[in-house]
Amino acid sequence: MAGVPLDDRGLLLGDGLFETILARRGELVLFDAHLNRMRAGCAAIGLAPPASDQARGLCRQVLDAAGLADDRAAVRLTLTAGSGGRGLERPADTAERLFATAAPAPAPASAAVLITATTRRNAGSPASRLKSLSCLDNVLARREALAAGADEAVMLNNEGHVAGAAAANLFWVESGRLFTPALDCGVLDGVMRGQVIAWARANGVSVEEVCAPPAALARAEAVMLTNSLIGVRSVSVLDGRALKPHAIAADLSRGLAAVS
Amino acid sequence: MAGVPLDDRGLLLGDGLFETILARRGELVLFDAHLNRMRAGCAAIGLAPPASDQARGLCRQVLDAAGLADDRAAVRLTLTAGSGGRGLERPADTAERLFATAAPAPAPASAAVLITATTRRNAGSPASRLKSLSCLDNVLARREALAAGADEAVMLNNEGHVAGAAAANLFWVESGRLFTPALDCGVLDGVMRGQVIAWARANGVSVEEVCAPPAALARAEAVMLTNSLIGVRSVSVLDGRALKPHAIAADLSRGLAAVS
Repeated sequence: MAGVPLDDRGLLLGDGLFETILARRGELVLFDAHLNRMRAGCAAIGLAPPASDQARGLCRQVLDAAGLADDRAAVRLTLTAGSGGRGLERPADTAERLFATAAPAPAPASAAVLITATTRRNAGSPASRLKSLSCLDNVLARREALAAGADEAVMLNNEGHVAGAAAANLFWVESGRLFTPALDCGVLDGVMRGQVIAWARANGVSVEEVCAPPAALARAEAVMLTNSLIGVRSVSVLDGRALKPHAIAADLSRGLAAVS
Repeated sequence: MAGVPLDDRGLLLGDGLFETILARRGELVLFDAHLNRMRAGCAAIGLAPPASDQARGLCRQVLDAAGLADDRAAVRLTLTAGSGGRGLERPADTAERLFATAAPAPAPASAAVLITATTRRNAGSPASRLKSLSCLDNVLARREALAAGADEAVMLNNEGHVAGAAAANLFWVESGRLFTPALDCGVLDGVMRGQVIAWARANGVSVEEVCAPPAALARAEAVMLTNSLIGVRSVSVLDGRALKPHAIAADLSRGLAAVS
C-alpha cells in the first residue's frame, strides 16, 4: 500500500482537509460540491486547492483499484499541507499532498441510537466548520457513544448549544418545522446539510438555522442525521427517549434521491 | 524516508499523540516525564501505551541516523492509533504505530513577540489537555501570529480565559506572584510547565493555577513561555505592549537548568 513520509504535516499535526464522497456504481455523487467545499477550506486555512481533474482522477483510480466501481462505496479524498517544517510553522514552499482511498459503504440498515457526548465542538476555531484532519474530538465523542451502546453522539459546543453529531449534521422537527444548528455554533458545513436545506426551501419546507440548547432536541418530534454517505437517517432513540420516524425524513430522502 | 500507510488513523483523523523531547548531546532530557505523559494520554483516549525501552530506542536511533547525537536537537515521538477503520470508529484490534523523527533545535535567540489569536482552544474536549495529533487549531493560531509579525500566539478558550500559547504554556508575574492557566481551562499539561511549578514551589515561589481573563496578561509585569525545547522564554511584546524580562524568569531558567 502506498503511504506518506514521516514528515507529512497531515500525519504530524492534522494539518489538512478531507472529503468523503459517495460513489454509486462508479458515479462520484456531488463531486463538484465536495471539491468546492475543499477549495473553500483551503482558502480558510491557507493551502493551495487541488485541481479538479486531478482530484477526480485519483478518486476514480482508487475505486477501480479497490474493485468497487460497481458498488456503493466511500471515496475519501485527503489533502495534507505536505512535508516539512518542524513544529507548527509551515515551510515557506508548502507543497500540498493529495491522495484518495476507497472502501465499501453499505447504506445504514436502521435508524440511529444517539447519546449526547461530554466532548464538545470548538466553535471558537474556523476548523470547526471545516472537514479537517484534526478529528480527535469527534473520535472521542464517537467512543463515548459506543461505550454507552449507542451508534452516534450529539456534540454540543462550549456554550452548550447543539452543534452536530460526531460524523453527521443534525436536523430536528418541532411543531412541524425543520431546524438545524447554525454554522456559527461550531458546525461542519456539510455537503448533505446544504443539499437538505436547499431542497427543503425549494419545496416549501422552512428550515431555520439556530443556536439551540439541548432542550430543543429533548422536545423534538423527530431527529435526523445527514451526511454524504447516509443521506438522511432517522434517529430512533436520543438519550434514552424513543423517537418515531417523521414524514419529513421520508420526504427529504425521496427528494434528495431525485436530485443527487 | 520511511512512511506510514494511507490508512493510518493519525494521518486520516489526527487520532494519536506525540511528545517533543529535547536532546542535548545525545541525552534525552526528561525522557521519563515525556513517556509518562504519553502513557497518561493513551489512557485518556483509549490507546495502548508504548513500551519505554522501545520508545527510547527509537529516539536514540533517529538522533544517530540524523547525525544529531552531538547537537541540541528535537526528537519527536509519535504514536498513532494505527491502521484501519473507515470513519471515526477504531477497528476492534487496534495496533498502535510508533515512530520517531529528529531535527536540529537551536535555542531561541531572543525574547518572543506575542499577539492574542482569535482561534480558541477547546476546553470542552479532553484532547485540549493532551499533546494530540489534532493540532490544526494551534497551526491556525500560529499563522495568525506570523501574519501579524509576531512569533507566537496567546490562545484563549471559548469562555474567554487565557489557555496558553500555540506551542507553549504561559506564565505571568503580577505583584511579584507567579500565575499560569489551570488545566481545566483547556491547557496542555506541559512537561516543562510541570517542571516550572515543581521547581518554583520547592524554592519558595508561589504559583497559582487560575482561569484568568486576558486583562490579567494585559496588566502583568512579565510574561513567559515554557516548553521542553525552549525551557523558559521571556516575552518582550504582548499585543503591542512592551514587557521587560523579570528576575523570576532568570531564576526559573537557572533553577531548571540545574535539575534537568
